[in-house]
Amino acid sequence: MSDAKIDRRNKVTGAETLIETLVNCGVEMCFTNPGTSEMHLVAAIDKIPGMRPVLGLFEGVVTGAADGYARIAEKPACTLLHLGPGLGNGIANLHNAKKAGSPIVNIVGEHATYHRKYEAPLSSDIESLARPVSSWVKMAPDAASLAPLGAQAVQESMRSPGNIATLLVPADSAWDVARMAAKSLPRPEIPKVDSAAITNAAKQIASARKPMILLGEPGLREAPLEVAARIATKTGAVLFCNTFNKRVERGAGRVPITTIPYFGEMALDAMDGVDLMVIIGTKTPVAFFAYPGKPSVVVPEGCEVLEVCDRDKDVLGVLDALSDEVGASGADIELQALSRPDLPDAGELTSVSIGQSIGAMMPEGSIVSDEGVSNGIWSNVFSAGAPRHDWLNLTGGAIGQGLPVATGAALAAPDRKTICLEGDGSGMYTVQALWTMARENLDVTTVVFANRAYQILNIEFDRVGVEEPGEKAKSMLNIGNPDLDWVKLSEGMGVEATRVDTAEGFTAAFASAMAQKGPRLIECLVP
Amino acid sequence: MSDAKIDRRNKVTGAETLIETLVNCGVEMCFTNPGTSEMHLVAAIDKIPGMRPVLGLFEGVVTGAADGYARIAEKPACTLLHLGPGLGNGIANLHNAKKAGSPIVNIVGEHATYHRKYEAPLSSDIESLARPVSSWVKMAPDAASLAPLGAQAVQESMRSPGNIATLLVPADSAWDVARMAAKSLPRPEIPKVDSAAITNAAKQIASARKPMILLGEPGLREAPLEVAARIATKTGAVLFCNTFNKRVERGAGRVPITTIPYFGEMALDAMDGVDLMVIIGTKTPVAFFAYPGKPSVVVPEGCEVLEVCDRDKDVLGVLDALSDEVGASGADIELQALSRPDLPDAGELTSVSIGQSIGAMMPEGSIVSDEGVSNGIWSNVFSAGAPRHDWLNLTGGAIGQGLPVATGAALAAPDRKTICLEGDGSGMYTVQALWTMARENLDVTTVVFANRAYQILNIEFDRVGVEEPGEKAKSMLNIGNPDLDWVKLSEGMGVEATRVDTAEGFTAAFASAMAQKGPRLIECLVP
Repeated sequence: MSDAKIDRRNKVTGAETLIETLVNCGVEMCFTNPGTSEMHLVAAIDKIPGMRPVLGLFEGVVTGAADGYARIAEKPACTLLHLGPGLGNGIANLHNAKKAGSPIVNIVGEHATYHRKYEAPLSSDIESLARPVSSWVKMAPDAASLAPLGAQAVQESMRSPGNIATLLVPADSAWDVARMAAKSLPRPEIPKVDSAAITNAAKQIASARKPMILLGEPGLREAPLEVAARIATKTGAVLFCNTFNKRVERGAGRVPITTIPYFGEMALDAMDGVDLMVIIGTKTPVAFFAYPGKPSVVVPEGCEVLEVCDRDKDVLGVLDALSDEVGASGADIELQALSRPDLPDAGELTSVSIGQSIGAMMPEGSIVSDEGVSNGIWSNVFSAGAPRHDWLNLTGGAIGQGLPVATGAALAAPDRKTICLEGDGSGMYTVQALWTMARENLDVTTVVFANRAYQILNIEFDRVGVEEPGEKAKSMLNIGNPDLDWVKLSEGMGVEATRVDTAEGFTAAFASAMAQKGPRLIECLVP
Repeated sequence: MSDAKIDRRNKVTGAETLIETLVNCGVEMCFTNPGTSEMHLVAAIDKIPGMRPVLGLFEGVVTGAADGYARIAEKPACTLLHLGPGLGNGIANLHNAKKAGSPIVNIVGEHATYHRKYEAPLSSDIESLARPVSSWVKMAPDAASLAPLGAQAVQESMRSPGNIATLLVPADSAWDVARMAAKSLPRPEIPKVDSAAITNAAKQIASARKPMILLGEPGLREAPLEVAARIATKTGAVLFCNTFNKRVERGAGRVPITTIPYFGEMALDAMDGVDLMVIIGTKTPVAFFAYPGKPSVVVPEGCEVLEVCDRDKDVLGVLDALSDEVGASGADIELQALSRPDLPDAGELTSVSIGQSIGAMMPEGSIVSDEGVSNGIWSNVFSAGAPRHDWLNLTGGAIGQGLPVATGAALAAPDRKTICLEGDGSGMYTVQALWTMARENLDVTTVVFANRAYQILNIEFDRVGVEEPGEKAKSMLNIGNPDLDWVKLSEGMGVEATRVDTAEGFTAAFASAMAQKGPRLIECLVP
């Protein structure tokens, strides 16, 4: 029968108690690319009901999908990764997930405890790799520890605003006999903000000439946005959010919020005249990068900054308390009207025309994973008045997030349409995600802006104050020669694809994709 | 004119002094995927003669190519990487390079020194990520430090057997004004081995019944292999190398060496009767992974182990001294005869028939980057008597090495044919390397073994002692559904490709690829 090789009749392995514990804690999806050291965990997923494995052909897909899943499901998936290199491959998207505040539980295989000292080829310092992208890292010293540590990992991942918990599992901890699974632990309490801080904020807003509220996670959902909007109406404040957000609920019937522009100069223009910045759910805005002679902090001159609470504290409670303090509960708010753009005229295909088409046609309930980099902005602008939808940004600046996040989001919400706005340069980072979309038959339409360049770098090259790029520099900034063929790449991984080079061509392709379910890719040749 | 924005007429930036220093130290190739924080380094590469930039569409390609380049060029390339996430994406292949002992100098951009404290989206603990894959990590605190640290980094990378040196470059250190480039520093001395150890080794070999010499880097090149073979002839020792090696010079006219098999049981069978293992240039062999109830150390029972010197010491000197000690200088050695297999019969395409075709046709001077995983072995077996060639293995077990290493090797030796043996599962990890092969028009023929599975894991799943895989487990071990189309993937990145499913089909495709120059891919449908 089974288990012939090791005598463990009627006994459970540490791996089985870990997977059962994760299921007990509400984790039901495992994004993975396992290896030999994880085989007992694979066997446990196979055996224990309630955990769905989703294979990624590269760990950047695995961790990015866990991020996208968490943003929509509002709970962690787990990942199952192969030792240090497997984790290494997933680091960039864990970095993005950490910056988003997405809950993820990483299960990382490690050599058997007694095997580690031999420095076998796959040995490495996994903890050193895990720490920069995790708020909690533990190694399970034996099989008995796996269940309680698994429950702890889920609990830590749910600490506000959402954290990365990484559990290292030596192979013998996984295969040795253990006793039983653990139960779910309570969700960590969210630290409250002192009421004096609220009173002070209200007072300062009242005396400011042009106050601004900068709102972050989890304030960018429909309900808290309405509270914030009432405060704004009542106090005359302007409402802003950061450039890149984990998840913004937007569209018709919701409160519109102004995004701080990416480039510092434009950001300062947008906030011109603001003399008080009240920050709730985030931090003082800083430039994405430093530039010679330009300031790091993006706050108008003379503007006072009041950090009321960061996203790890009780943001929703702060909004309610501030609303009470300023008497905003009955204040009028203006919700976004349903207002779609006209379809673009026939002719040149540009990021503007694409934005118009998307804004005109995206269905209610869409989820947009936006890694359009220099080209995504117009889709955001033109969809402001589209029916309710969610907008997910690249939060940590590590490109290669868009396709995986779309993958995870679509798995979390299979009945909604997911639209992935993707640069050609950034898309190539984790292009393997298309295969998972095909295998899981996910309802994702990917729009690739194929400008054959890291266009943002061509802009930045100028902005950092260096000379005109010569041939060698251009070879590092542009990705033509040869041009990528996204239709072939996509079809090569099982996703139906088409290429368009006119505005009307995109409109037709996008309309067709919106009318059907399943994965699609549209390669857009844009300038 | 130029430099209008910052006044630095006739002044050099830190970035310029760093790149000029690297060139002074013999570094002439920069594998890169830069970002905004690296723009001054891009500008410096553009301006300073002597550094060739090679773009990879993903950092795993960048670091793996640097490894392949180092293995053939026997000197470091540099990489240019974008902050923590860029380094993160390159970690798996840096891990492999570290295990290979390949010299690489990583230049990793970091936020400007004064900008780091603001925790901008791309901020992370880069040092913590770098340490596990680097033997030397430094941050350049200012522009003046860049040149001397650059020279040090190259020096450290050349420390025997070859090391990873990682230099973190804050953006302001790069853009600030500096004085001048540094000169090359002397190559670090290789630690000698005490003559008493040699005498002792000779004595023990003389008294052993069946001595074995386990030879590692850099002993696997033509000349030291001949010295080792003479010692073996004289003393009656058997000669072995590890399963996975940085670079083995093999083929007709060279000393053949037996490889320790991958699986522990087979390894012990191969070494049956050995009562003394003399280790030169490596360590006591250990199992790649631990398995329940199986030993970690792969040494026959009762066999004595004598670690004479690891690869960081004077391996070549030890071989010469031991040869003198045992009086082997005039001993006969048997060199591999030129002996190619017949072409396979028409019919089923298998890894065996592919190995026959490759062994029959690979040209003299070929470089083989072998990541064939469960399918590469027959190509190795059947090419043993082919004309002189180099064999490069996956050294650290982190899949995704094969295509990038082939890329770097081909750049180091443009006049030689590079053959990349690649699994479909492992190939997908860094599939973006095909684009760099196309852009640089590299003479690489990639052979993809498309079995639509992580076949090694199906084997390992059984070996670790777990039950028969169920549907969920199979979904994590097999990569069909949908099948990848490697022809489309390859053509999508500009590399001409063909699919074969018969032995004669492969023979024809491989013959055609050998007859021409430039990148080619052959997708082999194997069981």
